[in-house]
Amino acid sequence: MNKAILLIQCPDQKGIVAEVSKFLYAYQGNILEIDQHVDEELQLFFMRAAWELDSFSVAKDEIASKFKAEVGEKFKMDFKLHFNSPKPKMAIFVSKLSHCLFDILARHHAGQLEVEIPLVVSNHQDLKSIVEAFNIPFYHVPVSKNTKVESEARQLDLMEEYQIDFVVLARYMQILSANFIQRFPNKIINIHHSFLPAFVGAKPYHAAYERGVKIIGATAHYVTEELDAGPIIEQEVARVRHHNTISDLLQIGQDVEKVVLSKAIKYHLDRKVLAFKNKTVIFY
Amino acid sequence: MNKAILLIQCPDQKGIVAEVSKFLYAYQGNILEIDQHVDEELQLFFMRAAWELDSFSVAKDEIASKFKAEVGEKFKMDFKLHFNSPKPKMAIFVSKLSHCLFDILARHHAGQLEVEIPLVVSNHQDLKSIVEAFNIPFYHVPVSKNTKVESEARQLDLMEEYQIDFVVLARYMQILSANFIQRFPNKIINIHHSFLPAFVGAKPYHAAYERGVKIIGATAHYVTEELDAGPIIEQEVARVRHHNTISDLLQIGQDVEKVVLSKAIKYHLDRKVLAFKNKTVIFY
Amino acid sequence: MNKAILLIQCPDQKGIVAEVSKFLYAYQGNILEIDQHVDEELQLFFMRAAWELDSFSVAKDEIASKFKAEVGEKFKMDFKLHFNSPKPKMAIFVSKLSHCLFDILARHHAGQLEVEIPLVVSNHQDLKSIVEAFNIPFYHVPVSKNTKVESEARQLDLMEEYQIDFVVLARYMQILSANFIQRFPNKIINIHHSFLPAFVGAKPYHAAYERGVKIIGATAHYVTEELDAGPIIEQEVARVRHHNTISDLLQIGQDVEKVVLSKAIKYHLDRKVLAFKNKTVIFY
Amino acid sequence: MNKAILLIQCPDQKGIVAEVSKFLYAYQGNILEIDQHVDEELQLFFMRAAWELDSFSVAKDEIASKFKAEVGEKFKMDFKLHFNSPKPKMAIFVSKLSHCLFDILARHHAGQLEVEIPLVVSNHQDLKSIVEAFNIPFYHVPVSKNTKVESEARQLDLMEEYQIDFVVLARYMQILSANFIQRFPNKIINIHHSFLPAFVGAKPYHAAYERGVKIIGATAHYVTEELDAGPIIEQEVARVRHHNTISDLLQIGQDVEKVVLSKAIKYHLDRKVLAFKNKTVIFY
Repeated sequence: MNKAILLIQCPDQKGIVAEVSKFLYAYQGNILEIDQHVDEELQLFFMRAAWELDSFSVAKDEIASKFKAEVGEKFKMDFKLHFNSPKPKMAIFVSKLSHCLFDILARHHAGQLEVEIPLVVSNHQDLKSIVEAFNIPFYHVPVSKNTKVESEARQLDLMEEYQIDFVVLARYMQILSANFIQRFPNKIINIHHSFLPAFVGAKPYHAAYERGVKIIGATAHYVTEELDAGPIIEQEVARVRHHNTISDLLQIGQDVEKVVLSKAIKYHLDRKVLAFKNKTVIFY
Repeated sequence: MNKAILLIQCPDQKGIVAEVSKFLYAYQGNILEIDQHVDEELQLFFMRAAWELDSFSVAKDEIASKFKAEVGEKFKMDFKLHFNSPKPKMAIFVSKLSHCLFDILARHHAGQLEVEIPLVVSNHQDLKSIVEAFNIPFYHVPVSKNTKVESEARQLDLMEEYQIDFVVLARYMQILSANFIQRFPNKIINIHHSFLPAFVGAKPYHAAYERGVKIIGATAHYVTEELDAGPIIEQEVARVRHHNTISDLLQIGQDVEKVVLSKAIKYHLDRKVLAFKNKTVIFY
Repeated sequence: MNKAILLIQCPDQKGIVAEVSKFLYAYQGNILEIDQHVDEELQLFFMRAAWELDSFSVAKDEIASKFKAEVGEKFKMDFKLHFNSPKPKMAIFVSKLSHCLFDILARHHAGQLEVEIPLVVSNHQDLKSIVEAFNIPFYHVPVSKNTKVESEARQLDLMEEYQIDFVVLARYMQILSANFIQRFPNKIINIHHSFLPAFVGAKPYHAAYERGVKIIGATAHYVTEELDAGPIIEQEVARVRHHNTISDLLQIGQDVEKVVLSKAIKYHLDRKVLAFKNKTVIFY
Repeated sequence: MNKAILLIQCPDQKGIVAEVSKFLYAYQGNILEIDQHVDEELQLFFMRAAWELDSFSVAKDEIASKFKAEVGEKFKMDFKLHFNSPKPKMAIFVSKLSHCLFDILARHHAGQLEVEIPLVVSNHQDLKSIVEAFNIPFYHVPVSKNTKVESEARQLDLMEEYQIDFVVLARYMQILSANFIQRFPNKIINIHHSFLPAFVGAKPYHAAYERGVKIIGATAHYVTEELDAGPIIEQEVARVRHHNTISDLLQIGQDVEKVVLSKAIKYHLDRKVLAFKNKTVIFY
């Protein structure tokens, strides 16, 4: 089914839902899902509306301007219009650990992710054979302190070449520069292997072990310039016990990481995420 | 804040959201929450809208008829209109176990439940002193095989006397008659001490122990004439291990029961539950 | 590290722990883990002891007989002695769904499962290429009503040829005969896609959808002759909502299934499972 | 049943389990539970053994010295011997919030906590009537910046007068002095309303709201001189969504807090907690 999805943010006021739904109804849009949220503190209004495109009487490339003119401007809306076709293009960045990569590729192979994966980029060669078994191009872009600038330039070229819409850091273990991040605002999804904001930075499982926590977790978030501080999309946890070694924590954590990351990708693909002020509204 | 809440069920068709929101907007209703759901299989539309009453230009006692005339009839809506004031009246039925009762009374005492509790009814005397410590009338209505009809007649009289809106069976352990149930359609909330539909009926923790399950649970549901088969409102689970005795299961389970029951009461009070075809739509 | 693991069941009485630990100490066994459990109801004693083999002064092939003579007979023990080397051999049976298979193979590839996987057996061809990408032999053994006996004979031949120690049904979707099951007592691990004992049999997600449950689950258990009724090894659940379709349930459930099945395999491999009277003791 | 419970810490070496179990067996001790743990990194051995006292042939007041002479000294053990009778004496400190207090008192009333509660201490009068409804003495000890020393002196006098064994801070909201804490090493249980180490200090729900986390939690820990940094006994979490206000978080969190605190009290009472190096071993 061809769908259009509208994501809206604007100052809260009366009549927004009425006007948006009137617009969709006026042009024969069959609403599939409609969700709204008001942040009382900030007096901000958020909305997501999805509708069937086939019966809609406005041409696909005219919807945005028509909506802006008839509704958007009146309410000073910041809105984005998405279509579920063509599928968005997602790049995966990995390092040496395979669990998140495998999980994404297996879901994609099973037809569960409505996305194209034109390439996988890695700073190591270890996962090349896995990626190629799925018939996906694998690019080895080594990264070292001295070559970081060149490496990112190469990565950005690849993003452009393949017209990448968003990037998933599937345990990539490298910190991206502000330059790279600004090219993909709220379009880089990272999986951090702790229950943020606990254990920011490197080796969170070691830190969790030292602290003696009884529960560990993982956090998928959009990457911003401040390390591990971007808007959180999804989190999940798992129970650990005193007899679990750091190595156990790594394994238990991996099961959480891969599920959390895949959920975040799915929310992003389904256009269910609205990011604002370092937080997210998620209409699931 | 004075609020009105509208719960709607009707055959799905285009324009419902537009018409409902137009209605609210036209009379200066400030929408607080709006949720909708379409059951694709049954082609049924469900909606919940909450709005501020103070600024609304239709008088409280005219809203229902006006809405019916202007919107409801057109879409063949089955709708209910609720107000958050005056508070609904809830009767609690208990037997001997205190954990659910205590939990509800403690929440009520802390101001977390927007409800009046005019009375507690029990077939035993055990919990009398607890109830009276909270300054709530306690009625002892013994129930035995031979006196069941008279006991229920007495209970129904009490419900009428106190103008009870809905009933909570907080581990009441007695089966209500069809007659009683029909008087409170989707207005009797029971907590069953298993993860339904597993372990219907008596002694579910014993059955769970015998089966060797690794997780136990509790289920809050509306009472219908078929035992433990009514629409499920909420469920939750807890992990158990091989060394847990039946007595452990009872205790672990009680923590789940009281939380699940309180959540269900809260959803019911907030008018977030729409029951249909032995299921529930819950807009949380 | 070379390890020996002793699993013991016997009637409960005083002195068992003392005698077992004395035996291990007497022959320079460095105990790594020791766990015990008493089923008070059945007056049964369960124990698991793991110790370092390298420093142990009894030859590997004499431990069992020595232990039996010095400790086992006195307490009428039913015991099993395992070694972590050589690795056990696990056969995987699949049908068309890939998620559990992928998950196991990915973990194996990452070195997380101390097991050999000599072959994968399927009644369909769909997953052949995946299996072969991991360099594991794939056997297509079609199963139909009329050929079931021959198919199982072929499967059993394969089990013998590859000296299979235990079998994992990774969403195999076929019911094994009593004959097959008796060849692998408590050595066939199945993943059932419901929170047993709810929704035994086929299409549990459909049944869960119909019943309107708020939580779905998955159960890993040893296969016995009664369908979906064998000793439960592990269970896990996930929350669902009214807007989740059956197709959503299938996907949400798959994430639970694969994690539960992998945990069960791990417990089995680590010899942490003692099955008795249709239940399990799990020393994790 | 009269029980003795032995908690042991010592450098790891061979033969400890054998010697301890031999000691218990030699004097007709019927072992009820035995658990051990080795911290490989620190080469530390931990053990908990519980046995029936009635059949034990050593007099209650001679067990400790006999065990020390026959086993403890040999292995340089740091051990503690507990009996389940007489019941330990627990003081509860509260401020204004009632949910944890109610939960503890309700469990105690239902006979689930093997403890005496000789008094409740509060810096406010708000919860006086609740406490007295349970027939427990309530002491109002106001605390202000200038009177802190005197207030603690008064509290310590009360602890002494009532021969208090351990203290539970049931959302007490005051920071105890080093002097107080040193009087009760690993004997003060606090409930912190966040998933530590995230959101140390005051107003963690506000901080969680600001950060936009998707899961909140609570942590029960022993109080040490460093704020919210003592050994963690138990943690639990609950899911929150974008529409949850800070006030929602407070309520959702309270359900987690009370369950976590009660579990921690139960572990402590059952002598299942061994604290070391700012962590805990918990034999549940």
